[in-house]
Amino acid sequence: MRASSVKAKPSTRVPLNRLTAAELTQSIARGTKSEDVVSACLERIDDREKHVHAWAFLDREHALKQARALDRSGPRGQPLFGIPIGVKDVIDTADMPTQMGSSLYQGHRSGSDAACVALARAAGAVILGKTVTCEFAGMSPGPTTNPHNKAHTPGGSSSGSAAAVADFMVPLALGTQTGGSVLRPASFCGVFGFKPTFGAFNRRGMFPAAESLDTIGVFARSIADIEILSTVLELGAESPAAGLDRRPRIGLCRTPMWEKAQPETVAAVENAAEQLERAGAPITPVTLPDSFAELRHAARETINNYERAGAMADEWNTNRESISPVLRKRIEIGSRMPRSEYLQGLRLGEECRAKLPQVFADFDALLAPCVNGEAPRGLQATGDPSFQTIWTILHTPSIALPTHRGPHGLPVGIQLVAPRYADRQLLACAQWVWDILSPTI
Amino acid sequence: MRASSVKAKPSTRVPLNRLTAAELTQSIARGTKSEDVVSACLERIDDREKHVHAWAFLDREHALKQARALDRSGPRGQPLFGIPIGVKDVIDTADMPTQMGSSLYQGHRSGSDAACVALARAAGAVILGKTVTCEFAGMSPGPTTNPHNKAHTPGGSSSGSAAAVADFMVPLALGTQTGGSVLRPASFCGVFGFKPTFGAFNRRGMFPAAESLDTIGVFARSIADIEILSTVLELGAESPAAGLDRRPRIGLCRTPMWEKAQPETVAAVENAAEQLERAGAPITPVTLPDSFAELRHAARETINNYERAGAMADEWNTNRESISPVLRKRIEIGSRMPRSEYLQGLRLGEECRAKLPQVFADFDALLAPCVNGEAPRGLQATGDPSFQTIWTILHTPSIALPTHRGPHGLPVGIQLVAPRYADRQLLACAQWVWDILSPTI
Repeated sequence: MRASSVKAKPSTRVPLNRLTAAELTQSIARGTKSEDVVSACLERIDDREKHVHAWAFLDREHALKQARALDRSGPRGQPLFGIPIGVKDVIDTADMPTQMGSSLYQGHRSGSDAACVALARAAGAVILGKTVTCEFAGMSPGPTTNPHNKAHTPGGSSSGSAAAVADFMVPLALGTQTGGSVLRPASFCGVFGFKPTFGAFNRRGMFPAAESLDTIGVFARSIADIEILSTVLELGAESPAAGLDRRPRIGLCRTPMWEKAQPETVAAVENAAEQLERAGAPITPVTLPDSFAELRHAARETINNYERAGAMADEWNTNRESISPVLRKRIEIGSRMPRSEYLQGLRLGEECRAKLPQVFADFDALLAPCVNGEAPRGLQATGDPSFQTIWTILHTPSIALPTHRGPHGLPVGIQLVAPRYADRQLLACAQWVWDILSPTI
Repeated sequence: MRASSVKAKPSTRVPLNRLTAAELTQSIARGTKSEDVVSACLERIDDREKHVHAWAFLDREHALKQARALDRSGPRGQPLFGIPIGVKDVIDTADMPTQMGSSLYQGHRSGSDAACVALARAAGAVILGKTVTCEFAGMSPGPTTNPHNKAHTPGGSSSGSAAAVADFMVPLALGTQTGGSVLRPASFCGVFGFKPTFGAFNRRGMFPAAESLDTIGVFARSIADIEILSTVLELGAESPAAGLDRRPRIGLCRTPMWEKAQPETVAAVENAAEQLERAGAPITPVTLPDSFAELRHAARETINNYERAGAMADEWNTNRESISPVLRKRIEIGSRMPRSEYLQGLRLGEECRAKLPQVFADFDALLAPCVNGEAPRGLQATGDPSFQTIWTILHTPSIALPTHRGPHGLPVGIQLVAPRYADRQLLACAQWVWDILSPTI
């Protein structure tokens, strides 16, 4: 199979698996076959998967079959025509198992596509395979390594999606974020990671971790690609914004967790701010209202544990011994939590969201730390989600940009955050920022 | 099977299937077997199901087996020990199919319990069977009739749950409400129907109709029973409120749809207000802020259609011809809707929710119409959800009380609504109101 597809591949300087979705769309419009795109991705996976372990399920022949069907008869011109995407293994796929990173779901098939998968498929995407997730999108990692250094974590819980996109195995992948499960692995692996406004992408068919926080997100190697996939997942999205017609007004928000930032994160944020200021974007420090300091605890220790205990009541009843000790402990804490404590967490989130208009009054976006620092060494933990979590409970759209490197040469991202529902504005700001910062990387 | 259980049944004046869950718990504590309770429910179903058609799936032997296992070894004292409950057929059950009221899901088994089912099971409940739902919890009815007159609709979409509880087939049942799918059938069938604050009962394993509106709710023949099941589904619920220590302050909220109220609904609401006033509860008319008038359209025509189109993208891709024309049209409208229109609907909901503290400033609860009138004749439609929908998008807890009768002798309920998160306060007010009104029924 691979031999024939290699033969058929048109000569390009950059291998197809290294192109972005937008570039692939152009290439396909010029005659490249989706089969060749998929073959190039599969070859890359054949080469690298033994080191990266990004995939929980991959049926090469099935992936190629989807591509060939599109090449034969698909309605060209669809926004994702022929483009392979990876799907985090807590998101249902009709034609593949969804195994949740847990032995409890070994071989489990839901029989239907999650909404986001169905929408991508309807837009012409090839569902390449399922990417490794931490157990039930929590904190217990799977086997995935950081493609930049396999002794380091790729982050989690969308570990496989981040690593696969970073390692040029697939141009786009779907993930989920309940704490920091999209932006942290994006930052650690050196790709773009986008969490839209809460609720922007329909969650049918996603295994819930904590339903008032869970948000489906996207990994890509360009901001344009995020926009393409977002447009599909948003259903009736307006035409993509044509970029900003002026310099964005950016607030520098170090957040109440700034003391957790390691030197490389401090350097990344300060350097980004300096460069943007030099490029003519006014950068003004922003202090979040005092009450925001409690958001991290409310999201992570309160809402997450309580809602997790509810969502996993079935597994708790029937198979609790097969749940990892780390997750078991969270479910236990959640099960014993007084409801009043949970409601207090929900109310704090709501009160802080009500203050966002004043936080963003003078800004199009906030520049914030994305992670503590570069990906920690070791595969037993996926790093600290603190810098991502507060934006998750605030329901604001946020994006990780792979702008910097740390002391071990590993990626360190920055984070941009926009007001709720201003997802397109965020992507436009992110493109502007990226255009300033990327030449210096 | 039935013969032996009849033999074993302790002599009671009221048949076991007519007792409430609270009464059954007392009876079981005095030695009644869960098997006998289940047998009594099954006998009632055997007698009446040919008229009522409340059940989408029922495995008599499996139900009895659950009861016998509890009788043998279950930890007595659990809040739902030995109590049978019905489950709307859009809510997953590990041991039964979940068929969504659609030929598309004939025989479908998810393999796991929804959170609400798992929590009820862990609390000792017997999952009696699956109750008829409108197609995908929408507007296309199943075969269920109104137990009071089989020529009339039971309401929907939780048709079977309402009818089964009303017809003494089961003391408790789970439903879902996206527009008016709990309170309308409760009112039409003459039982209590409770929709808690949005998010109160975890939605894992529920087929989503519109995720920013979908709320799991409860049908029962007493308010105490609603409190018992709520306590289980809320996880770490505080001990049940001990009732109000004073007369509740009740606002009379005719709502902007008052002109839709038929004479029997006008009479029910006005009569309830008079009686409560006579009993010493100050009743003050409340006018909702002007912007609330648009809520019904935002919920029903905008958010519902848009989110439905996302949720059902898989069925739309693969089997749209098997979706009813009514639902297909809604999905088509949702798929074509500009995202800006959807976001406007979401924002309106949020803005109105932010005004709720001022609406409720002087009130513990609002008395509102529950339905247009009694259940309409015919089984082709389930009635108008207008009077329920605005409270669904407002995320407020609401309860239907079966207080009145219409011109054909069919039930007509009233609705009480409390501020978000004041679910216990609502139940306490409802009990106070019920104690005043029920002697006159």
